Amino acid sequence: MCLGVFVTNDQRPDRTACDLVPIAWDEVAGAVRLLDQTALPGRADQRLVRSTADLVQAIAELAVRGAPSLGIAGALGVVVAVDEAAREGWDEARRDAAIDAVRGARPTAVNLAWGVDQVRPLLGQGRDAVLAAALALTEDNLAANRELSRRAADWLLERIDRPRLRAITHCNAGALATAGWGTALGVLRDLHERGRLELVYADETRPLLQGARLTAYELAALGIPHVVQVDSAASSTILRGLVDFAVVGADRIAANGDTANKVGTLGLALACDAAGIPLVVAAPWSTVDLSTADGSGIVVEQRGSQEILQWAGERTAPEGTQGFNPAFDVTPSRWVSVIATERGVVEPAHGTTPRDLA
Amino acid sequence: MCLGVFVTNDQRPDRTACDLVPIAWDEVAGAVRLLDQTALPGRADQRLVRSTADLVQAIAELAVRGAPSLGIAGALGVVVAVDEAAREGWDEARRDAAIDAVRGARPTAVNLAWGVDQVRPLLGQGRDAVLAAALALTEDNLAANRELSRRAADWLLERIDRPRLRAITHCNAGALATAGWGTALGVLRDLHERGRLELVYADETRPLLQGARLTAYELAALGIPHVVQVDSAASSTILRGLVDFAVVGADRIAANGDTANKVGTLGLALACDAAGIPLVVAAPWSTVDLSTADGSGIVVEQRGSQEILQWAGERTAPEGTQGFNPAFDVTPSRWVSVIATERGVVEPAHGTTPRDLA
Repeated sequence: MCLGVFVTNDQRPDRTACDLVPIAWDEVAGAVRLLDQTALPGRADQRLVRSTADLVQAIAELAVRGAPSLGIAGALGVVVAVDEAAREGWDEARRDAAIDAVRGARPTAVNLAWGVDQVRPLLGQGRDAVLAAALALTEDNLAANRELSRRAADWLLERIDRPRLRAITHCNAGALATAGWGTALGVLRDLHERGRLELVYADETRPLLQGARLTAYELAALGIPHVVQVDSAASSTILRGLVDFAVVGADRIAANGDTANKVGTLGLALACDAAGIPLVVAAPWSTVDLSTADGSGIVVEQRGSQEILQWAGERTAPEGTQGFNPAFDVTPSRWVSVIATERGVVEPAHGTTPRDLA
Repeated sequence: MCLGVFVTNDQRPDRTACDLVPIAWDEVAGAVRLLDQTALPGRADQRLVRSTADLVQAIAELAVRGAPSLGIAGALGVVVAVDEAAREGWDEARRDAAIDAVRGARPTAVNLAWGVDQVRPLLGQGRDAVLAAALALTEDNLAANRELSRRAADWLLERIDRPRLRAITHCNAGALATAGWGTALGVLRDLHERGRLELVYADETRPLLQGARLTAYELAALGIPHVVQVDSAASSTILRGLVDFAVVGADRIAANGDTANKVGTLGLALACDAAGIPLVVAAPWSTVDLSTADGSGIVVEQRGSQEILQWAGERTAPEGTQGFNPAFDVTPSRWVSVIATERGVVEPAHGTTPRDLA
């Protein structure tokens, strides 16, 4: 296993799992090991990072991305700064400036700052205490993902009477965005390990194609049979009876179960409701925002037109045409069959809500 | 107006409308005039075609496409063959071979053969009789499109109490696929001419982007305010109350009103139903197939993986990943609010069906 810590460079017992770990501590190299996601799916390049400057650059380039991954990057960045300071003979002020540079590498990524702040108070206890705390964050994320995946898989297997299930998913809520296990894809991985998964339909997920690029990569690495389809095929795939359930991650879950996730999730929810199959939201408890009563309090991020209107530098629409590019949509709780977190499972469509787990 | 016949090359009274005529007879040049759709939306190049060989090439290159357009191309192709035979001194056998070449330029496009066969029996009556018959086909298509557009617009304006309506559409059912008016886009054009259209959300329509490339081009040429969005944004655009109705074309309509159209139409239908707004299907009567009782009798064409899995020659998914690429979906009649044809309007969701117009 190379989840969390790489113990050796060359004799990794589980090559597949290693290809899905976005960020980890390499004990042999004494460095952060990153999977360079900018090269996916064409290449799965590993990158060793020994300096805070290189880490800042990797984060800015999106070589590592995803909220939980960035939290871990922030925490491990403090270790890198301590080691670099010792190696280069930096004073404390220079070391702290390097840590601040990691903390601010992507200003809007709150998890990055959160990860730094989780371990920074331990600097007085020495480098090994900081490393232990950073690794504990990684373990916590992995444990939460595995637990919520197990709970969601149990829920599904109790309700769907088929030897092996067929699923649809949207976007990428997988190992590559977390500490190395995943949420929506963690559920599929759990079912696969139990021998209970038949086939996954992965929406390509326009405009950035996280489904085609990342989800398909993860499913291939895990040996899970899958096909990629355009997003607009989801409704007919569901209503033709080709899948038994849909599973997605979440960006934010309101107290009543209304769920914000990648735009297109709402379309899956409508089709699942019409077909009478469950929509499963798989997300760590940290995604639940009890201070937001319902979806009306969630602001949907509007992104730039150019993501839609051009491809590989060429315009796909006429000059002058504007794009409308909401990054997320909000699925009302009445269409959310189940929310699986590491704390437990609730069924918003049947009246239980995240509040019941608080 | 340059619908159907171009009377002059340089003094076209309505430049906008001319940019939306995919194929017409140019009286001055004595030739077929094509809008080269392979160059859209970047350029709107007009091409004069004087030989059957050039026409066959234009059809094969998809410079002209869409079932009604190809029917007209077939009919006008017979005129081109007659003129070419006179000019080049061909005998009848050579002329007939040239007509057959046009007829078979795209073997699966039945409308091409249909267009040839409509006018070929008139060869004995002379070239002008053939031309008149070809122009009559054009006029018939235009008249049918205009009539069904008017009926759909009337239906909408009777039911939606807003000064100007906001619409969503999917794919391209416009002038460029017909004789120069359009079906779904014809409805929008009719509303626009009455000053009753506010804004159109055009789905980009993966995998081939007919929405971004062609629908946005047509709306821009007509001066209709519009935005392009990814297909998966349709559900939230509808459920957030941003539009008053959806309008689409159809590839085939069963006797009970079940409607096959570009994949993604079903998702619009589900969202319209949930939002309580109408889904309008706009299609000429020739699209209705009374010999097919319902949607279960419609075979959905599966197209190749490469349309999904690569872009501009680059793979977007890992090597080995397969694509699932249904070209159409079938929307059950209970979610089809209205079908507007030139014969009249029926409301399948409320129990009237195309059979009632037979």
